[in-house]
Amino acid sequence: MQQIKHCAAGEDKSLPVLFPPAEEYAQGQDMLASWNEGLAKQSIINFVRGATTAGEVHFVKPEERIAVFDNDGTLWTEMPAYFQLAFVFDRLRTLAPEHPEWKEKPLYAAVLQGDMKAVAAGGLRGLMELATVTHAGMTTDEFAKIVEEWIATAKHPKFDRPYTDLIYQPMLELLAYLRVHGFKTFIVSGGGIEFIRVWADKIYGIPPEQVIGSSIVSKFEIVAGVPVLTRMPELNFMDDNVGKPVAINLHIGRRPIAAFGNSDGDLQMLQWTAAGAGSRFGLLVRHTDSVREYAYDVSPLGTLDKALTEAKAKGWTVVDMKQDWKCVYAFEASR
Amino acid sequence: MQQIKHCAAGEDKSLPVLFPPAEEYAQGQDMLASWNEGLAKQSIINFVRGATTAGEVHFVKPEERIAVFDNDGTLWTEMPAYFQLAFVFDRLRTLAPEHPEWKEKPLYAAVLQGDMKAVAAGGLRGLMELATVTHAGMTTDEFAKIVEEWIATAKHPKFDRPYTDLIYQPMLELLAYLRVHGFKTFIVSGGGIEFIRVWADKIYGIPPEQVIGSSIVSKFEIVAGVPVLTRMPELNFMDDNVGKPVAINLHIGRRPIAAFGNSDGDLQMLQWTAAGAGSRFGLLVRHTDSVREYAYDVSPLGTLDKALTEAKAKGWTVVDMKQDWKCVYAFEASR
Repeated sequence: MQQIKHCAAGEDKSLPVLFPPAEEYAQGQDMLASWNEGLAKQSIINFVRGATTAGEVHFVKPEERIAVFDNDGTLWTEMPAYFQLAFVFDRLRTLAPEHPEWKEKPLYAAVLQGDMKAVAAGGLRGLMELATVTHAGMTTDEFAKIVEEWIATAKHPKFDRPYTDLIYQPMLELLAYLRVHGFKTFIVSGGGIEFIRVWADKIYGIPPEQVIGSSIVSKFEIVAGVPVLTRMPELNFMDDNVGKPVAINLHIGRRPIAAFGNSDGDLQMLQWTAAGAGSRFGLLVRHTDSVREYAYDVSPLGTLDKALTEAKAKGWTVVDMKQDWKCVYAFEASR
Repeated sequence: MQQIKHCAAGEDKSLPVLFPPAEEYAQGQDMLASWNEGLAKQSIINFVRGATTAGEVHFVKPEERIAVFDNDGTLWTEMPAYFQLAFVFDRLRTLAPEHPEWKEKPLYAAVLQGDMKAVAAGGLRGLMELATVTHAGMTTDEFAKIVEEWIATAKHPKFDRPYTDLIYQPMLELLAYLRVHGFKTFIVSGGGIEFIRVWADKIYGIPPEQVIGSSIVSKFEIVAGVPVLTRMPELNFMDDNVGKPVAINLHIGRRPIAAFGNSDGDLQMLQWTAAGAGSRFGLLVRHTDSVREYAYDVSPLGTLDKALTEAKAKGWTVVDMKQDWKCVYAFEASR
C-alpha cells in the first residue's frame, strides 16, 4: 500500500466506529481521514463494507471489484482549464520556431500571443486540432519523455505549484481505501491515455495498464532497424461521454461496480456502472469551494447538469467539496 | 495459483535441479513437467530466473514483468481452422432461417452448404464479413451469452472434444510458472476480444482485463430505459501483425519483456518486445506433431516463415512440439 500523508493527521483518533468490523477502524485508523463525517463519507464506507463482507447480500468477489475514476476535476483540479491544455500550449510555443507558418494561422497565433479568448472561440474542435498536432510526430517513447519533463517543471498559474501537487487528498485516500479492500482502480479519462500514464502510477498508484483515455493513432514501423510506434496526427478514440462505457468495455471487459466523476462527460460511465446487477456505487465530485479550490458547475470545457439531476434521481453520492472535505490538497497541512 | 493436472505426472521426481534457487525445484516440484528437458525448457527457466532473482543483472521489477501470448496455435490448437470460424459458421447456420436472402449470396450459401473450398476462396475479406455479420446486432451481454453456450457444446471435428480441451498443457504450465514468478500474463490475439474473454479466465486463468484482441465497433445507447452496448457490423480494430504492438501499447502501456507466438502474424509483437532494453524473451511454437496435434508451417490463414527466420537470427526460442512437449493436451494422460 502507498504511504499517504493525511492533511488532517491527528484529528481523527476519536472518530466513532461507523461499522465495527471494518479493519481500519479495528486498528484505530481512519483511512478516509480527510473526509468530514457526513453522508458522502458514510455512503462510501457503507458500499465498501457491503461489497467486501463475506456473507453480505451485496458481497462482490474480489476480481469483480472494478472501480473507475474520471481524472480531470475528479482526481485532480481542472481549472482554469484541463492541465493537458497547458501542456499543449507550452508545446506549441516550444515548436513554434520550427513552424513559421503558424503565425499566419489564427488559432495557432492566438495561442502564441496568449489570447485565450480567441483560443476558446476555436471551440473543442480547434483544441483537438492543436492537441493532435502537438502530440504527434514522434515515437511513443519520445512522447513519454517530453511529458515527463513537462510535468516535472510546469506550474499551475494560481497555486504556483507543480500540477501533480493539485491532486485531491480525499480522493487519494479513497483510491487507497478501495485497493486495500480488494478493488482494482482504473482511470477513465477524456485526457490523453499516454499523457496520463507517464505520472499516474507515481501520483495515484495506478499502473499504465489501468489507465484508459483518449488516443491518437500510432503506427508500428521499423526505423533504421529499430521497431518503433510512431504517433500520427489523427484521432484514434475520444474517451468522453458515450465513449467512456465503450472504452471500459474494450479495455476492462467487465462492468465496474463503482464509478466516480464530476461532469456530464462522466454521465454514461455512471449509467453503465449503475445499471449492473447487485450493489453499485456512483459518485460525483461537486466543486463548491472557491477558497481552497474553485466553485463552479460549468468549466471551460465541461458542465455538471444532467449528471447532477440523475444523481439525485438515482441516489448517487454527490460530494460537496467545501462541506465534505477536511482538506482539498495535501500541501494545505504545511501552510 | 490454478491447480494444474500434469499429463506426465509422476515422471519428474528425479529431474536434475537446473537452477538450484528456483522455488519449485527446492520443493521438489517441476512446474514445467510436461516439457521435455532440452533447450526450449532451459531457455524459459533461464530467462525467468534472470528476471526474478534479486541482484541479477537481468532482474526486472515485478510490475514490469509483462508477458504476452498469441492464442490460436500458441495456447490452443488452430487447425483445421481458427475455432472462432467454427463459431461463425455455426452462428450463420443458426441465423439462416431469419435471412432467406443469404441463399442468393455465394459466400453465405457456401457456408450453409458446407463448401469450405468456396468459403476459403472468399479469402480473409470474406471471412471478416461473415464474422462481422454474425458477431453484431446484439448487446455485449447477449453476445457473451451466445459464446458461452456455444463453447460449452461445440466440438472439434478431429478430436470430438470441446474446443476448450484443446489447450496446450505445456503452455498452461508456462502461464502458471510465469505468474508464480510475478509475471502478469496477457493474451494478444487476432481473434475477437469479446469471444475470448468469455472463457479465457476459466481455461487459462487470464482475466478479461488481460485479454486483447480484434474488435468490432460497439455503441452506447439507452434502450427502453436500460443502458446497453450494442455491437455494430463494423470493424473497430484488427489485432494482427503490425496491429499487435499497437494494441499492446494501447491496452497495457508498457513494453512486454516476453512474447509467445506461432506465426508471422506474431512477428511484430516479438520484434516490439525484443527491442526493449534489458533481458527479453521471444518464443515461437512450431507445429511438428502430426500424431498428437498437427504438423504444418502454413495453416489456412497463417504462415510461419519470416518469424522463424528472425527467430533464428535473434536467438528466440523455437519450440518443436513433437520433441519438446511430453504431452500436448491434458486429456492424453487419461487415454
